[in-house]
Amino acid sequence: VRGSLRRPRLAATMAPEVRVRRIAVLGCGRVGSAIARDLAEEFEVTVADRDEEALDRVARGAPVRGEVADLADPGEVRRLAQAADLVVGAVPGDMGFATLKAVLEVGRPVVDISFFDQDPFLLDELARDAGVTAVVDCGVAPGLSNLVLGREEATMDRVTRFLCYVGGLPVVRTWPYEYKAVFSPLDVIEEYTRPARYVAGGEVVTAPALSDVELIEVPGLGTLEAFNTDGLRTLLVTVDVPEMREKTLRYPGHAERMRLLRETGLFGKEPLLVNGVPVRPVDLTAELLLHHWRLRPGDEDLTVMRLVIEGVEDGRHVRRTYEMLDRYDRELGITSMARTTGYTCTAAVRAVAHGAYRRVGISPPEFLGREPACHELIVRHLAERGIHLAERTEPAG
Amino acid sequence: VRGSLRRPRLAATMAPEVRVRRIAVLGCGRVGSAIARDLAEEFEVTVADRDEEALDRVARGAPVRGEVADLADPGEVRRLAQAADLVVGAVPGDMGFATLKAVLEVGRPVVDISFFDQDPFLLDELARDAGVTAVVDCGVAPGLSNLVLGREEATMDRVTRFLCYVGGLPVVRTWPYEYKAVFSPLDVIEEYTRPARYVAGGEVVTAPALSDVELIEVPGLGTLEAFNTDGLRTLLVTVDVPEMREKTLRYPGHAERMRLLRETGLFGKEPLLVNGVPVRPVDLTAELLLHHWRLRPGDEDLTVMRLVIEGVEDGRHVRRTYEMLDRYDRELGITSMARTTGYTCTAAVRAVAHGAYRRVGISPPEFLGREPACHELIVRHLAERGIHLAERTEPAG
Repeated sequence: VRGSLRRPRLAATMAPEVRVRRIAVLGCGRVGSAIARDLAEEFEVTVADRDEEALDRVARGAPVRGEVADLADPGEVRRLAQAADLVVGAVPGDMGFATLKAVLEVGRPVVDISFFDQDPFLLDELARDAGVTAVVDCGVAPGLSNLVLGREEATMDRVTRFLCYVGGLPVVRTWPYEYKAVFSPLDVIEEYTRPARYVAGGEVVTAPALSDVELIEVPGLGTLEAFNTDGLRTLLVTVDVPEMREKTLRYPGHAERMRLLRETGLFGKEPLLVNGVPVRPVDLTAELLLHHWRLRPGDEDLTVMRLVIEGVEDGRHVRRTYEMLDRYDRELGITSMARTTGYTCTAAVRAVAHGAYRRVGISPPEFLGREPACHELIVRHLAERGIHLAERTEPAG
Repeated sequence: VRGSLRRPRLAATMAPEVRVRRIAVLGCGRVGSAIARDLAEEFEVTVADRDEEALDRVARGAPVRGEVADLADPGEVRRLAQAADLVVGAVPGDMGFATLKAVLEVGRPVVDISFFDQDPFLLDELARDAGVTAVVDCGVAPGLSNLVLGREEATMDRVTRFLCYVGGLPVVRTWPYEYKAVFSPLDVIEEYTRPARYVAGGEVVTAPALSDVELIEVPGLGTLEAFNTDGLRTLLVTVDVPEMREKTLRYPGHAERMRLLRETGLFGKEPLLVNGVPVRPVDLTAELLLHHWRLRPGDEDLTVMRLVIEGVEDGRHVRRTYEMLDRYDRELGITSMARTTGYTCTAAVRAVAHGAYRRVGISPPEFLGREPACHELIVRHLAERGIHLAERTEPAG
């Protein structure tokens, strides 16, 4: 199966140019609201959520229209999509697949950042039948990381190795976890539990999550640790690189602490009898970690990403390293996580809206990276918002 | 209140000599069975427990009579005590106080190692009215440690400082806890939660449990860590030493891991709603730790104790250090914990049975240490069983 999805790109169908005026942003969380605000500079934006307060907050800061809606209802999603020329999916992961499906059922182009568990290519036929572009996994990593790899794969003679180090971190480091999350602890625990798939010698192999801890130095920030997580997602099947690995970045010590909880059994999903009552350990643990991990309003965060791509370019072996260190936006009060995820998404929205990316069907960001004009538009869009990928190339053994 | 209990010793009443032939051992756990076996060399021993299998096991190895009995029933305890000349209390801590009370109600001398939470002096009047000796907390620490301090307090001009380092450890060190317990994890968690009382400048002060971690070297074993726990118990009121501290010994790293669990909220006693069901986090945690911490048959353990006593002796400041490193008894299959606890108890039983200790009322082991003949008998008894306290004295600043 690996690499088989590369072929369709040669025979890709292009969507007709559509004029995009009205955009529906589904979901008004931290990222959804940053997306709505950014898109409102150019489009007529409607943002939908169950949370009226969140809608009021974003409407106070930008000319967007809020609409209270239950996005768990596919009928509501279809109605909102039909009233728009393009849709952004920014719902929680467990609602993502159904939401994307409902949007495609009414034939609207869509850019999604819900990072749902299911294989997005299950919706490829639906998107093709509708003749629309559906960009998925369009955040930082997956997202920007895929875009960069797609670009290198299209321009190098061949790519031999891809390493992605990425993490969102709080500025203030509080013992013991030195970590804050904008997602549910259950999602983070899932990352620390699910075996990590990576590619070695052209084969997909697995390692336990939280394994192969190594220390890396980040200029201007200090030492972080990196460990295996299952983050390659679509890259496992869309690109043909024989060595690929994704690692999560945290402050040093985090992985061992999470392994301690995991090996103690605190991430267990099998109910345990506690005084005669069945309890899933992971539910209690997630409930407790919520208090420690919740990023509170005003808490500053940062996002670190390092991509290492080795390959043959003009007949020579090279190693190209991309480094990103993004920080909280104090002026707008937007987290770095929302900036890097949201602005990659709004960049892709513009690429689709302006006809720089017109491939029909499901497209993970590595497909967008293969189109030079689209890649350039996205990188420029991010740079205008202060998100830079510093790049250096050196000879590789 | 501190020190006030020293005075009664001057006016101590002595029990009449009684001939001890029959001993009832209440409780046939790891320690109770080691006690029964040891005492059977000299006395007629009846050991009582609810667990018939445990009774059969001990009866196979030694000439003791097992009796199935519900020791949670004070009537049963009184009946068993009445049929004996002396009683050993070796029930779980939460049953200890009621059991001791029932024994004293029928006026039998008793040596107790149940380490119950309640203040043992609440039973002093009952023991005095019955005219019997009741030795409590008679294990290693509290126990042997108190005996040694009592001895030094009686012989030095004055004691200025007492430090007790003590811990039971598995020989095989398994990540992450490197710890095994013969007691319920709930009891260990309680040690790691309850503020530690110690004495500084003559005053009782408290520190969080697991605090003031320091590393100590144990010859023949390696590096251990020591941290505050609330282990001084009766010494807080019975002796007049201006600096006293008790610390628990574990393999390095244990304290931080337990603090991680504690600070995460996993030792919490307030019910938390987990999917609508109230759960005490500590109950779930204890249930999970049971699998990691259970000392299984054949698992070898060791006991480490270091006592540092500073004071003025013959007009000179001295520091006297006692070191004990005791190991699992492979021949008899008796844990070091059962050896050190049980044999200190059987030594005290002999001191009472042979009239070397006759003080009426509640006696913690520091009272026994004040009687030279009693102290000598106990130390000799332990040495005969391979338990040695290596002693060295050096000048102190």
